[in-house]
Amino acid sequence: MRLVRYGPAGHERPGMIASDGTLRDLSAVLDDIGPATLTIETLDRLRAIDPSTLPPVNGVARLGPCIARPAKFIGIGLNYRDHAAESGMALPTEPVVFQKASSCIAGPDDDLMLPPEAVKTDWEVELGVVIGQRLKRVDDTAALAGVAGYCVVNDISERGFQLDRGGQWTKGKSADGFGPVGPWLVTADEIPDPQALRLWLSLNDERRQDGTTADMVFGVARIIAYLSQLMTLEPGDLICTGTPAGVGMGARPQRFLKAGDRMVLEVERLGRQTIRVRQD
Amino acid sequence: MRLVRYGPAGHERPGMIASDGTLRDLSAVLDDIGPATLTIETLDRLRAIDPSTLPPVNGVARLGPCIARPAKFIGIGLNYRDHAAESGMALPTEPVVFQKASSCIAGPDDDLMLPPEAVKTDWEVELGVVIGQRLKRVDDTAALAGVAGYCVVNDISERGFQLDRGGQWTKGKSADGFGPVGPWLVTADEIPDPQALRLWLSLNDERRQDGTTADMVFGVARIIAYLSQLMTLEPGDLICTGTPAGVGMGARPQRFLKAGDRMVLEVERLGRQTIRVRQD
Repeated sequence: MRLVRYGPAGHERPGMIASDGTLRDLSAVLDDIGPATLTIETLDRLRAIDPSTLPPVNGVARLGPCIARPAKFIGIGLNYRDHAAESGMALPTEPVVFQKASSCIAGPDDDLMLPPEAVKTDWEVELGVVIGQRLKRVDDTAALAGVAGYCVVNDISERGFQLDRGGQWTKGKSADGFGPVGPWLVTADEIPDPQALRLWLSLNDERRQDGTTADMVFGVARIIAYLSQLMTLEPGDLICTGTPAGVGMGARPQRFLKAGDRMVLEVERLGRQTIRVRQD
Repeated sequence: MRLVRYGPAGHERPGMIASDGTLRDLSAVLDDIGPATLTIETLDRLRAIDPSTLPPVNGVARLGPCIARPAKFIGIGLNYRDHAAESGMALPTEPVVFQKASSCIAGPDDDLMLPPEAVKTDWEVELGVVIGQRLKRVDDTAALAGVAGYCVVNDISERGFQLDRGGQWTKGKSADGFGPVGPWLVTADEIPDPQALRLWLSLNDERRQDGTTADMVFGVARIIAYLSQLMTLEPGDLICTGTPAGVGMGARPQRFLKAGDRMVLEVERLGRQTIRVRQD
């Protein structure tokens, strides 16, 4: 299934993309797609629905983030060899974990407003993992069974805030709009191997990132198992799993986002984001 | 006002401590005390209520965290000179910001379960600040007007996870139970100067921490203004503002928590936590 949330920001309704590509409204079936509703059981219930019986949504609707505000929006750093190298940082021996403020979540095609103080805002195409069960100290083999689905995440990062302001990356990961999520939450049954997905990002039609999740240092199952020892993961929690090489910080010369830029990014089978950059 | 949440974990009801010290039930007035309800306007409405008209709660009720799960649980690191020194870290030139997983929140007197993998679990008595308004790029002079109230936070920290596992403190700050919050949310009108509060912690009746919020490197107003440039703060967000010297990591020899220990901690005017340590 491809699940979406559509409508004005803050007032999104749940929907489903039918096999013919049409958007169908799910709000008669569930209130929202997020922490309060996103369980494996809910997904089983949705899977039993014939999408053609759902009301179609006419006209072009804005897509919101494909899940409602997560209780935790966790990022994994330096999780691709080539990205760690371009960042000038050592390859981690354990997953590097940070948190994005959940208030940064945005729709997949929303404009990005650069904060006035931003100086080095950068892009990061990533595989997003949405949790569908309470997970506490699970091992690697049990981890993937707790995944509700996958989505595209752009882990937008202000390198000035993140690295030059003293202490802890969350500073540069959390501004409003720094977490475009979607277009679709693709349920886990449709992604049998999360380590075999190509992902890429173009800036102004120039390909900047082009990788595959096969190159992750720590795969999705390992990340989930590792996190579940440090904290309890819960339905609706969102994990972005790191980015391959090609970010602006790693370019020579460095290249950061400016008003007028246009990012297009995709993860195989999970859809595409198109984001225009503006100055706040 | 002193606001509380009482009852079994996960099923807390809102309450208020009357001037005679009795616990009164607020659930006829509002659903909960947290992100969905905690605005300056809600507090004004509560302030108009005569507590003696509210039903008393009979018997001894467990106190839960005095606010429901925050959307953001933010910590400020190394924010007291003497604590930075004992940690062997440089005094920060800007606030050090990290996030605790919101799932770590606990009641003020709940037992602390040490995770099986924990090796260096430590205590940190802190002044907690609860946001009551949407705050985006406010300046220092406007910041305190956005505070709903204050509370005691024990920023429990597994130093092994935090410092020895590669990258980003959130790893050691986020286990279940690592965020005891309360007993009371004391509304901001009763704390005219948040930089004039004594705070202390005892372990097994031995005083370990004894400081004053006057010694913060960055005061509450500066912290809020600073954070509000990096992310939007929202009603119900919780910020713990750093700890004075006397943590276990700073002791010689170092001393970490073990099963059977008992922490008692207090922030002046905000009440006291009593926490027994157990092994999970």
